[in-house]
Amino acid sequence: MSKGKQTKERILQQAAELFNQYGYHGSSISDIMRVTELKKGGIYNHFKSKDEIALLAFDYAVNCVQKHYLGVLRNKRHAVERLQAIIKAFSTYMDNPVIKGGCPLLNTAVESDDTHPQLRERTQKAMDNWCSLIVRIIDKGIARGEIKADVDPDEAATIMISILEGSLMMGKLYGDMIYIKRGINHLHRYIEKDLAS
Amino acid sequence: MSKGKQTKERILQQAAELFNQYGYHGSSISDIMRVTELKKGGIYNHFKSKDEIALLAFDYAVNCVQKHYLGVLRNKRHAVERLQAIIKAFSTYMDNPVIKGGCPLLNTAVESDDTHPQLRERTQKAMDNWCSLIVRIIDKGIARGEIKADVDPDEAATIMISILEGSLMMGKLYGDMIYIKRGINHLHRYIEKDLAS
Repeated sequence: MSKGKQTKERILQQAAELFNQYGYHGSSISDIMRVTELKKGGIYNHFKSKDEIALLAFDYAVNCVQKHYLGVLRNKRHAVERLQAIIKAFSTYMDNPVIKGGCPLLNTAVESDDTHPQLRERTQKAMDNWCSLIVRIIDKGIARGEIKADVDPDEAATIMISILEGSLMMGKLYGDMIYIKRGINHLHRYIEKDLAS
Repeated sequence: MSKGKQTKERILQQAAELFNQYGYHGSSISDIMRVTELKKGGIYNHFKSKDEIALLAFDYAVNCVQKHYLGVLRNKRHAVERLQAIIKAFSTYMDNPVIKGGCPLLNTAVESDDTHPQLRERTQKAMDNWCSLIVRIIDKGIARGEIKADVDPDEAATIMISILEGSLMMGKLYGDMIYIKRGINHLHRYIEKDLAS
């Protein structure tokens, strides 16, 4: 990788952490200069605007998250095991998140829904991908007889993601893992009782 | 109410809608001047700083939300009916929220957790109140034999709030009620199967 590409990548990584903690509106170019230890010119050398950095930093964050999921799924074949692996991977978001600040989908969804159409569209696509991952696992699981045939995959994906993100929101608000543990326990029972055949 | 008090109340109501859509960092004093149609002096006549407005506007929003819940609970006595009424009241947050912009607890929790200790503390207290409302309903329900004796009230409150807030986040991200409907259907099954005795 060229030195220029390396610098660009480093800016995106540091900006991703900044935006994920302070949000789009809570992060200025001066903040990006501070965390990257670069002058304004050194940043605008690689990006046109704060908006371009925000969109690409979000993509960077989502890419890291997706790699994290693919990693934990690698050796899991059974649909139930794969769903459990996603839950386990998510449970690290409070104490040891892939990107500092928690889940970029939750943070960016809540900030962008009423304010930033481009960032919102990006978040929709990332959420589409996450939903699709769960839907594909369930579809395959139904075909293999691992998941009950009458399960609605889209509904199950919404339930899983809602409770993970909702309990992370509560956990981060209080700085207490108990909320995430309760959410996860509920999801494990849901998978055992309502999804697994 | 004196004219000064009326103006103060109107500023808080309009600021609450502004902050609930654009967030603390996404709303400036100029934005507050625009929505209230007041000059800077007219605002600082009543408040010391943007911070003071943000904190009091959050309290105003939470107060509206709490009144909304107390209203829907007024004629419900059975614990199961009361939990269902809370879910139904929440389901209006997307199309017809009490405060424009959705749920102030979700929005402020996600924005303040890494950035604004005072606003975060306010949100914790508001969340405490919401949790307590659900816990009290369940405690009474257990005492009256309406709720299973082995239900953990705190766990049930976390599950209810997580799925409501998580599915609202998805619904608002996509501008589609289906996510909230799925979350709510799941919660109704949860109440029937796991909570109701």
